[in-house]
Amino acid sequence: MSKIIDELTKGILEGNRNAIARAMTTIENEEDGYVRLLSNIYERIGRAYRIGITGPPGSGKSTLTNHLTKILRKEGFKVGIIAVDPTSPFTGGAILGDRIRMHDLALDKGVYIRSMATRGSSGGLARQATELADVLDAAGYDYVIYETVGVGQVELDIAEAADTTIVLLVPESGDIIQSLKSGLMEIADIFVLNKSDRPGAERMQKDLEYALHLRESDHDWHPKVYQTVANQGKGTEELWTEMKNHRSYLDSENHLVNKRDRRLKNRIETVIRQRIEFHFWDDKRKKILKNYLESEKEKLSPYLLAEKMLEKLLKTFK
Amino acid sequence: MSKIIDELTKGILEGNRNAIARAMTTIENEEDGYVRLLSNIYERIGRAYRIGITGPPGSGKSTLTNHLTKILRKEGFKVGIIAVDPTSPFTGGAILGDRIRMHDLALDKGVYIRSMATRGSSGGLARQATELADVLDAAGYDYVIYETVGVGQVELDIAEAADTTIVLLVPESGDIIQSLKSGLMEIADIFVLNKSDRPGAERMQKDLEYALHLRESDHDWHPKVYQTVANQGKGTEELWTEMKNHRSYLDSENHLVNKRDRRLKNRIETVIRQRIEFHFWDDKRKKILKNYLESEKEKLSPYLLAEKMLEKLLKTFK
Repeated sequence: MSKIIDELTKGILEGNRNAIARAMTTIENEEDGYVRLLSNIYERIGRAYRIGITGPPGSGKSTLTNHLTKILRKEGFKVGIIAVDPTSPFTGGAILGDRIRMHDLALDKGVYIRSMATRGSSGGLARQATELADVLDAAGYDYVIYETVGVGQVELDIAEAADTTIVLLVPESGDIIQSLKSGLMEIADIFVLNKSDRPGAERMQKDLEYALHLRESDHDWHPKVYQTVANQGKGTEELWTEMKNHRSYLDSENHLVNKRDRRLKNRIETVIRQRIEFHFWDDKRKKILKNYLESEKEKLSPYLLAEKMLEKLLKTFK
Repeated sequence: MSKIIDELTKGILEGNRNAIARAMTTIENEEDGYVRLLSNIYERIGRAYRIGITGPPGSGKSTLTNHLTKILRKEGFKVGIIAVDPTSPFTGGAILGDRIRMHDLALDKGVYIRSMATRGSSGGLARQATELADVLDAAGYDYVIYETVGVGQVELDIAEAADTTIVLLVPESGDIIQSLKSGLMEIADIFVLNKSDRPGAERMQKDLEYALHLRESDHDWHPKVYQTVANQGKGTEELWTEMKNHRSYLDSENHLVNKRDRRLKNRIETVIRQRIEFHFWDDKRKKILKNYLESEKEKLSPYLLAEKMLEKLLKTFK
C-alpha cells in the first residue's frame, strides 16, 4: 500500500496528470493511504495561490473563471480549477445545470480541471477543498481557482479555503443584497458586478457600495466593486489587477500567514473530529443507539443516554 | 443548582412565561444545569406539532406566520413562534432587517415569541431549535412555528427540526428555482407562492410544478404549490387545510414517529460530538496545537500531528 502511495506522490511532484487524478480520487473517497499521501506532499505545498469565485446561479462564474484563466495562462502561470457542485444533503444528487463549459481550456496542458462533490458536511468541505488544492499545489500549479455554485454554507467553506474570495453578482440580483448581509458580505475580498451592460447595474453598484460603507470592518482591506461583462472579457484585466493588489495586501504584515494558519488549525480540528467520531461509533455503540430508539426512548432522556455512553470515555481524557 | 433547575421545570410545566424565558436562556447559553432541565421535561414532550416556515428574504415569512398564528388561535390552540436570525459566522453580527413585526400577537397570552441566534454551528442549530421547542411543548403549546430568514444551511437545519416544512417563494424569485435544486426542493412539504397577485405568478407556479414533477421521490407525499397573498390573508385557509393533510399523512404509517426518531438520533449524536470535543480540547491540547502553528508546522504534517494527538485516546475506544 505505502509503496503505491509513494509512487503516486512521485507522480504528483512530477506533475503527471494521471497521478493527480488518481490522488484526488483517493482523497475524495478517503481511500487507504490518503493520509500518508497528504503527509507526503505536505512539505511541497504553500506556493499555489488560491482564489474562490462564488455567487448565485446564473451570475457568470464559469465565464469569469474562463477569462481569468486565460489571463493567468498568458502570464505563464499553470492553473488548477476546482468546480464545487453542491449536493443536496437529503438526496445525494448533484446539480446538473450550471456546470463548467470550458472546452477551449480542456486541451491546454497548463490547466487542470476537476469537479468536486460537497456531500453536505460543513467543516469537512473546506478541508477537502484545501486537500485537492494541495495536490495541485504540490504538482506545480501556480493558481487554484475554486468555482462554487449554490448558496450558503458552501460559499463560507470555500472562502475558508481561499486566499482571495471574489463574490459575483448581476444587476438582477436585487433581493440578494439583503441576503448578502447574512454572510456573503463578510467573505468577499472583491465584489464583481457581472453582466454590467444590463439595466440596473449603476443602481446595484451604488446599493452595494452603500452596504459596504455601512459594514464595520476590523481590518485595512476595503472590498471594492468591479463591473465586468465576462462573456466579452470586459473589465477582467482591471479585476486581475485588483486581485494582485489583494495578494500584495495579504503578503504584507503576515495576513496571508495568519489566514493559512487559521486554515491549518481548522483542518487539524476537523481531522481529529472525524477520526474520533469514526472510532466512537463502532458496531457496539451503534447498536446501543438503535436499541434506545426502538425500545427505551420513553424511559431515558437522550441526554442521560449520551452521558451514559460517554461516561467511560470522558474519564480517559484526563 | 439542581433545586433551581427543578423549580424552573415546575414553572415550565405550569406554563409560566418567566420560567419559559429563563429556561430558554439557560439552554441557549448552555448554562449549568441545562442538561438536567432538558432531561426533566423530556417525558412531557411530544405533543406539540412543529412547523418550519422558510424562504428568501422579502418573501413574506413573518406576515404568513402572523396569519397562520391567528388561524391557530381561532381554533383554540396555543402557539409558540421561534424566529431564527442567521448570524454571520465571520462577525457574529445578526441581520437587523426582516425581523418579525407582530405587535398584535405580542399581547396574546396564548402566543409565545422568541428570537434565536444561529451562531453558525450546523448540526448544533437543529438541536438547539428542537430544545427551545421542547420547552414550549412541555409548557403546553400546541404548535411551534420556526420562522427562518437567510439561505442555505439554516433552512436545512430547521427542516430537520420541523414536522412540516413550508417553503415560501415570490414571483420575482426567478433564479431561485435553480438554487432550489441544491436543497430547498428536498425539504419542502408544501410550497407557498406568496404575493401571487404580482406579475409572473402563473409562470412561476408552472415552473415550480414542472421542477417538482421531475424530482424523484421515494415517499408518497407529493408537495403541492399554494398561492397566497399573505398580507391580505388570501389563500391562508387553504394552506392551513393542506398543513392538516400533511399532518394526517405523517400520522399514518409511522411517518411522524420515524421523522422524530431521526431527530432524536441526530440530537444524541450532536450532544456526544460536542461533549467529546469540549473535553478533548483542554488547555493541554490547545497548547500543543498553538505550539505547532507557531513553531513546528514546517516539520510535521497536520495529519501526523492529529495522529499523534489521537494515539492514546483511540486505544481506549476498544
